[in-house]
Amino acid sequence: MFVNTMPRYEILSADAIGVLDRGWRRIVSEIGIQFAKPEAVELFAKAGQRVDGDVVFLDPEFVLEQVAKAPREFDVQARNPAHTVHIGGDHMVFSAVYGCPFVREGDVRREATLNDFHQLCSLSQSFPELDSAGGVICEPNDAPLDSRHLDMIYALQTLTDKIYMGNVVSGPNAADTIAMTSILFGGRAAIERVPATISLINCNSPLRWDDRMLDAQFEYCAAAQPVVLTPFLLMGAMSPVTIPAALTQQLAEALSGIALAQLIRPGCPVIFGSFLSNIDMQSGSPSFGTPESAIGLLCTGQLARHYGLPFRTGGGLNSSQTPDAQSAYEALMTLLPTFLAGTNFVMHAAGWLEGGLVSCYEKFIIDIELLRELRVEFTPLEIDEASLAFGAHEEVGHGGHFLGAAHTMERFRSCFYRPMLSSTSNFERWLKQGGKDTAARAGEIWRAKLAAYEPPPLDDAIRAELDDFVVRRRRELGD
Amino acid sequence: MFVNTMPRYEILSADAIGVLDRGWRRIVSEIGIQFAKPEAVELFAKAGQRVDGDVVFLDPEFVLEQVAKAPREFDVQARNPAHTVHIGGDHMVFSAVYGCPFVREGDVRREATLNDFHQLCSLSQSFPELDSAGGVICEPNDAPLDSRHLDMIYALQTLTDKIYMGNVVSGPNAADTIAMTSILFGGRAAIERVPATISLINCNSPLRWDDRMLDAQFEYCAAAQPVVLTPFLLMGAMSPVTIPAALTQQLAEALSGIALAQLIRPGCPVIFGSFLSNIDMQSGSPSFGTPESAIGLLCTGQLARHYGLPFRTGGGLNSSQTPDAQSAYEALMTLLPTFLAGTNFVMHAAGWLEGGLVSCYEKFIIDIELLRELRVEFTPLEIDEASLAFGAHEEVGHGGHFLGAAHTMERFRSCFYRPMLSSTSNFERWLKQGGKDTAARAGEIWRAKLAAYEPPPLDDAIRAELDDFVVRRRRELGD
Repeated sequence: MFVNTMPRYEILSADAIGVLDRGWRRIVSEIGIQFAKPEAVELFAKAGQRVDGDVVFLDPEFVLEQVAKAPREFDVQARNPAHTVHIGGDHMVFSAVYGCPFVREGDVRREATLNDFHQLCSLSQSFPELDSAGGVICEPNDAPLDSRHLDMIYALQTLTDKIYMGNVVSGPNAADTIAMTSILFGGRAAIERVPATISLINCNSPLRWDDRMLDAQFEYCAAAQPVVLTPFLLMGAMSPVTIPAALTQQLAEALSGIALAQLIRPGCPVIFGSFLSNIDMQSGSPSFGTPESAIGLLCTGQLARHYGLPFRTGGGLNSSQTPDAQSAYEALMTLLPTFLAGTNFVMHAAGWLEGGLVSCYEKFIIDIELLRELRVEFTPLEIDEASLAFGAHEEVGHGGHFLGAAHTMERFRSCFYRPMLSSTSNFERWLKQGGKDTAARAGEIWRAKLAAYEPPPLDDAIRAELDDFVVRRRRELGD
Repeated sequence: MFVNTMPRYEILSADAIGVLDRGWRRIVSEIGIQFAKPEAVELFAKAGQRVDGDVVFLDPEFVLEQVAKAPREFDVQARNPAHTVHIGGDHMVFSAVYGCPFVREGDVRREATLNDFHQLCSLSQSFPELDSAGGVICEPNDAPLDSRHLDMIYALQTLTDKIYMGNVVSGPNAADTIAMTSILFGGRAAIERVPATISLINCNSPLRWDDRMLDAQFEYCAAAQPVVLTPFLLMGAMSPVTIPAALTQQLAEALSGIALAQLIRPGCPVIFGSFLSNIDMQSGSPSFGTPESAIGLLCTGQLARHYGLPFRTGGGLNSSQTPDAQSAYEALMTLLPTFLAGTNFVMHAAGWLEGGLVSCYEKFIIDIELLRELRVEFTPLEIDEASLAFGAHEEVGHGGHFLGAAHTMERFRSCFYRPMLSSTSNFERWLKQGGKDTAARAGEIWRAKLAAYEPPPLDDAIRAELDDFVVRRRRELGD
């Protein structure tokens, strides 16, 4: 887990925050938020909020009272305690791409399979830059639909020993996730004490929380498992086209979802979620890695801190069809602001391609290289007299070189970032090495890493109990 | 010209600046700076500085007195007044890659020619994101060596109407640049009043200014033409391997060169230069777009502001051999901090490939796209009640979409960044369009732009005078 103690890059003035603050208050109180689950509406009504059908008109002060019940920081335990993470403060937690129906390896783009899911879990386990494989690292289309979530949770639990994300397709799926997590961590009490899974609850923006997502949220919040309450905003489609409007909508939606979480179980850990980009007004397609999304990201961090909440945003987002130049610059156009904002929970940090439709093996490696570089870039410089190396200057003098200086010899192994993927070979040497571009080299890296993968040890009794659970539930689900 | 009114990202504490400040003072006073030109040494001696051979031991307070004579901000005039630039403050000026012996177009990498030089000038003229083609946008290897500088200046003057950089290979070449600039701008007095060219004076780091560069500096400073005094630091070779050591060396070198400029002509405009990266300690090759260079860049901006000087740093630097993912992420890993630092003068902003050995047409287009995006990203958000689009929420309600909302219809043409190069096409459409990756699309863009190029108008009498000058000087130089 990376701790980012560099300064935050903040671009909103106090006045601007004031305007945005008034904005969400007006939305929740005058337009209201739709909750497509009667139990949710009932909780709000009981708490004194005005209700009209499934629309709740929220008193902003009430919302903030609920928000204040959420912990500012919390732990999520992994079955390998070394991989337990802390969410909030200066901590940054990274998980892989989430939700892709397709995969790309090299020139082949195809439907994702359970084997891909296993391979991508193994790769996520293999790189310390990732704290989690995430959840739906790709959609295992060849696994039976109704019990697929069991296969995914089982793979996340057994092929990695890091934290993982829960299934949110339905309430029962969430209950299965919690049951399997309880098995892995020694009972429900253990995971209620320290949560062991995180789940993504998306808003059906604008201003509507859907029934299935809410069903899942109720399960997770009741079990004190953190939820990432995330407005899903592609400006121009799910929100107005101006960034301030999107930011106020994002506040209205996320804070209303967080208020619900606190009504379900006061003190339940939550993450202020943001997924904010725009559509291309010419093609109608979603755009990622845009200037607008970078600006939105920086503002989101500042706003989340203003309301005292850990937040999720960023990732290696891009619209590109292949792991080419565009995929790289759009990914970094998002990832660098992700670090500048000090994002606490980063989904889609590795593997995202083609607007999130594709989980790409080569892009996964490109993103890991970016994360490695950014971790170095966001490590504070130590500046003291000793770091000035005055003695090296005395040794080398004018017009010489430092290659053999004592100061260099003492430090050459660790003084600079060592690339995993990037090449500094001169042209002739590069040609001799096969003239491989970045994507081709990335292909070699993931294949080698996968070949070297060893599953983390797991207690046989726990594995057997998980196996039994999966078999039983699959039978019950009719798959 | 872009004006960056976003906040600066500053990572040095006041204490750290104090340590670095003491560092350069110690270097210039105890180790001294070598000036391989007797006239330079003599100027320092006359001004009371201790001299030993060609090494000058500088009193730091004397250096700062000289530095204080340099203007904090100044204009550089272009022959098209609309392209005149302001150097300093919040202004950012961008020029193309500089100094490449090779070019790449598509899969072909070859020696650069004068035709390439002309084409790259034309492209620089064609994109408003560039304020200048720079100087040696590629090395025209098929032009006669001794008079090649005439061909380059002539091309910069006639194929573009933007500012350009002067030749620095020798004192006579600098004098030719000044003479040709005087012709173009109506006499030497006119360019002494408002400078019309900028020149790059590199330090032969560590701590040595070479004779030919100094010869050029003397010519330019005497004519009040700004020089960019640039330590050339690849950490591990030309400086110690620690960033603070490189920063103090950079201060010692740049400030000593600036002090000399003020001795040559008090009040001469200068730019604090930085070219700071590191070598790959495994391959021995230079590395670009590294975390270390990004950190150095941010610190450089802060230090330049501390000493009240406009500064140069950044660009689209990378080590990659082709315009692939690495070329893009390394370029942005430098360009985004270039904007965060508010860099006043940016060389190598378009076209740099392969550690600066190659001027690449496709990379040129990739960089222009990055510059276009960053200009949007670093434009302050306007946040007021009107920007919140409350009416759009009233219109759309819960779970709808904003595609046809009045607020969207009013703004859809200009609300978001419109990509020139990036594709948001879905996979099927992208395949139908030829399945072209970013580099292939960039190839189409530069060819179309070049085909549409029209040279800016130039007065016939001035052109004839420039022609005469070039013919006469070429004859004198024996080419």
